[in-house]
Amino acid sequence: MSTALASLTDCIRPQLAAVDRLFHDELASRISCVNALVKHVSRFRGKMLRPCLVLLAGKACGDLNESHNAIATVVEMVHMATLVHDDVLDEAELRRKGATINHLRGNEAAVLLGDYLISHSYHLCSSLDSQFASRAIGRTTNEVCEGELLQIDNRNNLELSEETYLQIITLKTAALTATCCGLGARFAGAGEERIERMETYGLSLGQAFQIQDDILDLVGEVSTVGKTLGSDIEKGKMTLPMIHFLRTAPPEHRALLRSLLKSPDGDKVEKIRNLILPSKSITYARDRARQLVDRARSAIADLPDSDARAALDTMAEFVVTRPM
Amino acid sequence: MSTALASLTDCIRPQLAAVDRLFHDELASRISCVNALVKHVSRFRGKMLRPCLVLLAGKACGDLNESHNAIATVVEMVHMATLVHDDVLDEAELRRKGATINHLRGNEAAVLLGDYLISHSYHLCSSLDSQFASRAIGRTTNEVCEGELLQIDNRNNLELSEETYLQIITLKTAALTATCCGLGARFAGAGEERIERMETYGLSLGQAFQIQDDILDLVGEVSTVGKTLGSDIEKGKMTLPMIHFLRTAPPEHRALLRSLLKSPDGDKVEKIRNLILPSKSITYARDRARQLVDRARSAIADLPDSDARAALDTMAEFVVTRPM
Repeated sequence: MSTALASLTDCIRPQLAAVDRLFHDELASRISCVNALVKHVSRFRGKMLRPCLVLLAGKACGDLNESHNAIATVVEMVHMATLVHDDVLDEAELRRKGATINHLRGNEAAVLLGDYLISHSYHLCSSLDSQFASRAIGRTTNEVCEGELLQIDNRNNLELSEETYLQIITLKTAALTATCCGLGARFAGAGEERIERMETYGLSLGQAFQIQDDILDLVGEVSTVGKTLGSDIEKGKMTLPMIHFLRTAPPEHRALLRSLLKSPDGDKVEKIRNLILPSKSITYARDRARQLVDRARSAIADLPDSDARAALDTMAEFVVTRPM
Repeated sequence: MSTALASLTDCIRPQLAAVDRLFHDELASRISCVNALVKHVSRFRGKMLRPCLVLLAGKACGDLNESHNAIATVVEMVHMATLVHDDVLDEAELRRKGATINHLRGNEAAVLLGDYLISHSYHLCSSLDSQFASRAIGRTTNEVCEGELLQIDNRNNLELSEETYLQIITLKTAALTATCCGLGARFAGAGEERIERMETYGLSLGQAFQIQDDILDLVGEVSTVGKTLGSDIEKGKMTLPMIHFLRTAPPEHRALLRSLLKSPDGDKVEKIRNLILPSKSITYARDRARQLVDRARSAIADLPDSDARAALDTMAEFVVTRPM
């Protein structure tokens, strides 16, 4: 969460601190070189979005307990493992542009560090009383892998449909946020109907989040977003604005985008941005994200008033209103 | 198992067939590109050593049930995931020698395919009634990752001690074979003392197996062993014969081995082999493997006579008597 959002998590502050401790305690090893590597994990630490979803969903539906802290730590480890392995894939990309052998050691360590994180996430999850969370986490990580594989399979596929795009982002991103909210609610004692609605909240939020992330990668300002942009184009990842543009823009504009996407031009990110920005395709993608946020918010509309419910509501809204 | 050993698994043939089915059913996806990739897994399929250990340990201690089939499938998936990710690390090695960009796509897919296997292994394991197996598998994969990381950290470390070498092979190889035997016995209803002895069997067998594998990599015949040899030297992996040689050989021989290990010489594998072969270091390593096999065999000596017990006994013996 950005500083603007920090106050949203006030109601789960002790639990977030416990998650932080559990995260480090679980990853500690008797072997010093492993600990040295685990330290590097901190450079991947982020906004704790997924632990917040577990804890806020639980708090909004009932009382938090020790299981919530464990599950929140588990989902953060799962998320970090995907980041670490994405890093391996990205380093592969870098090497395509001729980076040096020195990256390789980092690459090997990153594969194993990702494995170490995912192994610890399952190990921690299996410390819970029931198999339910383990089963749900296992099913979800199956889906995350499927989403990543489907994404790679569609690299540089200019014919990618909106339907398959939605399937990719649902599997690779939204499946986990849905599971976070569902488990948070379940372990707070919520009934099946409530749990299902919390899953809908998490699923829609995750989908909207990924669409917005993809929009920012295309047309955001580096100074505001705070990370390298244009990487989807560099990686041959087709995202919603591009998919819409190739379907609806005037034929000569479509042809131009196709040729830019295929070209090795070093300035192509800037050119594609300038081509798509004045079109209706950014608005279309924003509208889709907005619809999903509305769907997320209405799924929690009938929860009793609480700080946690308000935080979930604000978080959903923030997905589409965060600065460009 | 080689054909010579095939008859050893006669007593668990229906279970091995069930494991094979379960393996494929579990990995099947609704997404066709995932299935296409899973097909490639078959090129990593091997001797089913770990499923055999689960099933034979179970059968030697009591009756087999559905849980054994699931656990046997789980450990095979875990093992395959490590092979697939090792492949990524090895491809990195290949690239050091200037292989082409084409390897990269395979590399990315291999990271994700390994993740897919490990995710499915945990998912399948969490379908069992109790958390016990999930917890044991999670602890074991934690250890496998630690062993791999410790091994990478000691690449090209000519000062590697025998103690640390044993720690590496215990974590990366023997921890899993120990867990196979322990879980096999436990799910057949064995008592704690028996389970502990079966774990000792699996641990010692795994250690002996890895030492023998390392000996074969150094001095085996390609035609008999059936895979590329000398890869440990190429990867800077110090193994027991080399560690012993650097500790005990005449000073000028030690100096020669050190300089060969550090040299970029294309023939160094052959030269190192010719240097170590006449020394006492191969015998020393063989004796260590033999001691461990004896330890494994004595851990199952008091089991009631059965085909399964006899198979475990023969498998242990075969570890040190398999053809060079």
